Amino acid sequence: MSMLVECEALRDWVKGILCRAGAPAPQASCVAHILLRTDSRGVRTHGVTRLASYVEKLRSGEVNPDPQISSHSISPNTMLLEADGAFGQVAMSEALRLGVQGLDTGDMRALLIRECGHLGALGLYALMAAEQGYFSVVAQRTPALMALPGFEHPAVGNNPIAFGCPISGADPLVFDMACSVAARGHILLRARSGEPIPEGWALDAHGEPTTEAAAALGGALLPSAGHKGMGIAMLVECLSAGLLASERSIAALRSETGVAIQGAVGRQGAFMLLINQRVLSRGYFDAYMSQWAGQYRRKGGVDARLPGARGAELEREVRRRGSLDISEDLYRELCGLAAQFGLNFPAAALA
Amino acid sequence: MSMLVECEALRDWVKGILCRAGAPAPQASCVAHILLRTDSRGVRTHGVTRLASYVEKLRSGEVNPDPQISSHSISPNTMLLEADGAFGQVAMSEALRLGVQGLDTGDMRALLIRECGHLGALGLYALMAAEQGYFSVVAQRTPALMALPGFEHPAVGNNPIAFGCPISGADPLVFDMACSVAARGHILLRARSGEPIPEGWALDAHGEPTTEAAAALGGALLPSAGHKGMGIAMLVECLSAGLLASERSIAALRSETGVAIQGAVGRQGAFMLLINQRVLSRGYFDAYMSQWAGQYRRKGGVDARLPGARGAELEREVRRRGSLDISEDLYRELCGLAAQFGLNFPAAALA
Repeated sequence: MSMLVECEALRDWVKGILCRAGAPAPQASCVAHILLRTDSRGVRTHGVTRLASYVEKLRSGEVNPDPQISSHSISPNTMLLEADGAFGQVAMSEALRLGVQGLDTGDMRALLIRECGHLGALGLYALMAAEQGYFSVVAQRTPALMALPGFEHPAVGNNPIAFGCPISGADPLVFDMACSVAARGHILLRARSGEPIPEGWALDAHGEPTTEAAAALGGALLPSAGHKGMGIAMLVECLSAGLLASERSIAALRSETGVAIQGAVGRQGAFMLLINQRVLSRGYFDAYMSQWAGQYRRKGGVDARLPGARGAELEREVRRRGSLDISEDLYRELCGLAAQFGLNFPAAALA
Repeated sequence: MSMLVECEALRDWVKGILCRAGAPAPQASCVAHILLRTDSRGVRTHGVTRLASYVEKLRSGEVNPDPQISSHSISPNTMLLEADGAFGQVAMSEALRLGVQGLDTGDMRALLIRECGHLGALGLYALMAAEQGYFSVVAQRTPALMALPGFEHPAVGNNPIAFGCPISGADPLVFDMACSVAARGHILLRARSGEPIPEGWALDAHGEPTTEAAAALGGALLPSAGHKGMGIAMLVECLSAGLLASERSIAALRSETGVAIQGAVGRQGAFMLLINQRVLSRGYFDAYMSQWAGQYRRKGGVDARLPGARGAELEREVRRRGSLDISEDLYRELCGLAAQFGLNFPAAALA
């Protein structure tokens, strides 16, 4: 069973909660907009369900509600943003805004973003770049969460990475992955309900495979496809931590205990590469990729979709309807926040 | 059982065979050098075992033995190489040589390489870049080989990608993956011997999972970690085909039949991104990554190695010994080539 809520009213309410929790209106508005789009595209794990944890992060000071974001060019193609602990959504929106400036005649630009919060679904920023006509790669490091069998402690984050590619005459290709087989949130849910986790998700504190959710929480996540997931996570570490390292990030790395952490941690590095594929390919990129996308669908058959296509369809559907369906559990959680902040939850109808 | 062959003699012999098959000495020398380094680092699937197929490709004209490689800047940071059907090793060595020129004061450079042959182990070029002090990403597209369950035909290549990262005081981090669970070569071997293949490697011609090697050869490879492997392959398609697309590559894409092909196909696009991390990070990259690498090893425990560490150790061992061990099967195959080209195989001793 789920509840239908009018999108605009829900977005305004999310913004209102964030404001009451201490965020200035522009920041709250940016976060609310991105969380709603994320839900609209069907990425339920990274939408409004994160609101309670974001409120908590404002309260604990892990997210800086009113950051002084500064930026400067460190080379003709590379810009460094000091996000000052901003919400990831705020920092990345600013990075994208700066990144595309002048890029209509340029070829590529790298954005190095220091100390920003959880980005949510990285694909959203890759989508936003594609909607402006650019190819992009987006990555964020997380504290250590993953290990290979036999490891004593988690040794690398599950470091998400995404890319986006405009496709002429079709929805943008948007691909988004984390490097672990399963998110820690899924293990947390099963630990609460006492259910076992599938084999291949996690290790216990001794580096042994486990199907016990509680043991997994004290251990580490397994990477997707073994050493391949581990390697992609290392690539992300280089791009979104190494390239923008500072005295502070080195000190923060040193203080990572190797004990598994819970939820999305603030003040992490992020990376965005924007490519103006029209300048580089003189128009052939569009011709090639639209030909390629058509072939992919033909070779795949009726069920073949490119990543991003289903999200785009869902979002159109939500826009047409003007309302978003949310699970009953989430509905109850949001009503709790509503009561806590004295801000009525919008009217919701059984879906 | 394996045979020990003196490295220099083996390299000279490989070069000699390639020369007799039609390659000019500089090209033959470049290919021989890279194949030998690949074997020395333990990547046996992409070393001298490829010689017979390279000779075949010279014969069939798929590799152009004496290409007119030309290059020009298409923007301040991007260079396009027309490889004219060259050996991948030759084209990529040239790309790397051009790419690092002037990069000691620059920040990044993209190399778009049109129509080059099989690169072999992509990690070798990432390693070569790291040995010169640069961070790099290398990718090459292949014709369509992979599908998801239910697909009617292979829809995307198993598009390998690699990256390399210098680490202060340690061997470079070198990571190299293809996007399929298993290489087609492994399926080919099992089809010859009549052995079944493991579940999860491949689909048959109807898009159904199969453990029959022969059926898999008429079907498609499965991507690593399902949609994740598929997505990474699409990223590679954008970078190493889309960005450097031309009338010819679009026509070639159109003529891909979706019928699985055998072996490494020539005249494919490749991509290399070189980053001068010292300029971008003002020295902090090195400090961060060496701290990170140390922590990775400590958290991992005695068995934890960074990708590239074992290859570096093996290569030092081969250098110390001055000889390479090759399998008996490969030895017999190479002796066959020796007879065919009238060029005696170097002295080999039982290992």
